[in-house]
Amino acid sequence: MVLGKVIGTVWATRKDEQLKGLKLQLVREINEDGSDKSRVVVCVDSVGAGVGETVLFVQGSSARQTEMTRNKPVDAVIAAIVDKLDTQ
Amino acid sequence: MVLGKVIGTVWATRKDEQLKGLKLQLVREINEDGSDKSRVVVCVDSVGAGVGETVLFVQGSSARQTEMTRNKPVDAVIAAIVDKLDTQ
Amino acid sequence: MVLGKVIGTVWATRKDEQLKGLKLQLVREINEDGSDKSRVVVCVDSVGAGVGETVLFVQGSSARQTEMTRNKPVDAVIAAIVDKLDTQ
Amino acid sequence: MVLGKVIGTVWATRKDEQLKGLKLQLVREINEDGSDKSRVVVCVDSVGAGVGETVLFVQGSSARQTEMTRNKPVDAVIAAIVDKLDTQ
Amino acid sequence: MVLGKVIGTVWATRKDEQLKGLKLQLVREINEDGSDKSRVVVCVDSVGAGVGETVLFVQGSSARQTEMTRNKPVDAVIAAIVDKLDTQ
Repeated sequence: MVLGKVIGTVWATRKDEQLKGLKLQLVREINEDGSDKSRVVVCVDSVGAGVGETVLFVQGSSARQTEMTRNKPVDAVIAAIVDKLDTQ
Repeated sequence: MVLGKVIGTVWATRKDEQLKGLKLQLVREINEDGSDKSRVVVCVDSVGAGVGETVLFVQGSSARQTEMTRNKPVDAVIAAIVDKLDTQ
Repeated sequence: MVLGKVIGTVWATRKDEQLKGLKLQLVREINEDGSDKSRVVVCVDSVGAGVGETVLFVQGSSARQTEMTRNKPVDAVIAAIVDKLDTQ
Repeated sequence: MVLGKVIGTVWATRKDEQLKGLKLQLVREINEDGSDKSRVVVCVDSVGAGVGETVLFVQGSSARQTEMTRNKPVDAVIAAIVDKLDTQ
Repeated sequence: MVLGKVIGTVWATRKDEQLKGLKLQLVREINEDGSDKSRVVVCVDSVGAGVGETVLFVQGSSARQTEMTRNKPVDAVIAAIVDKLDTQ
């Protein structure tokens, strides 16, 4: 999984049937100190994350292993909202 | 998923049988502000996107989860046409 | 698999049901001489690795092939603790 | 899929049983204007592409979705020979 | 598949049960002219490659398609030892 920060929402009317009803969030990848990386990914949100929150997102086939995304054309999903990072 | 912009079409006569009849679009990856990235991917188009449109494309095994691409040698598919990005 | 060093722990209360009970470790990718790379990944820990230990982590669908992670939205897992690297 | 150009052939006698009889081509990734990228991938050739031809190659699990590569340890396959790119 | 050169061996006592008995080789990615790339991957060796040999390694779910790695948490496997590259 990768650390990210929700930075916005994507609106799309014309889309694959299986994406209907899924919330699509723009997530910027971040470093472990909270600083921005350049990569931005569009994730399905399975945990109700709001803009500004630090999250973990899952990529690839593993992104289809949530109830919300199973068997759907989804390659990135927010799977957790981060409370705290303990680094040493 | 990743943001992209359709920049052209690929024509190929000699190809795997399972790719026959699929529209292959050239898609440039873009940033969330609409600026170009250097990476260009060839995607199957499952939603009828035209040149110049901003799209979401899905990669990897998840690209085979649309009706059009199931069980085919396809690793990238346009799954949505973006109407609007709300960023903060 | 990739070489990494455990550098911390991620705490997340709100998460996908299937992630409950899994330990999430921050792992920095390292070179074969032990020096740091910039990429940091969040891995499920299936082998009880502690902070500072050198590990091997597995990514993608293969990360779901441990007993602890099977069928879960997990794309990175620590699968071994490295004792020694023999390089020539 | 990604655009590439066939630049050579790989010869290997000692290999996994399932790779026997498959033609392995060296493919350089190229940009949409035909210029070279630095990445070179070894692909199974399922369409009879010759050296110098522009091709599309498929990566990851989708590379196992051709008749020639099914269930084999193959992560890249040439799936089409490009006739023409229409870009705007 | 990607070209690499075996540069060493990884020793790990504490590891996932399914990795027991598998030889883990350090493989440096190389260019088609034999020069080094910076990326080093840990691969299961299914073909008996020795240090210094040029190999092809397979990544992702396809790395689980050898007899030795099936259903195991393995995302990279050496699948061939390269005899010769014909490039033009």
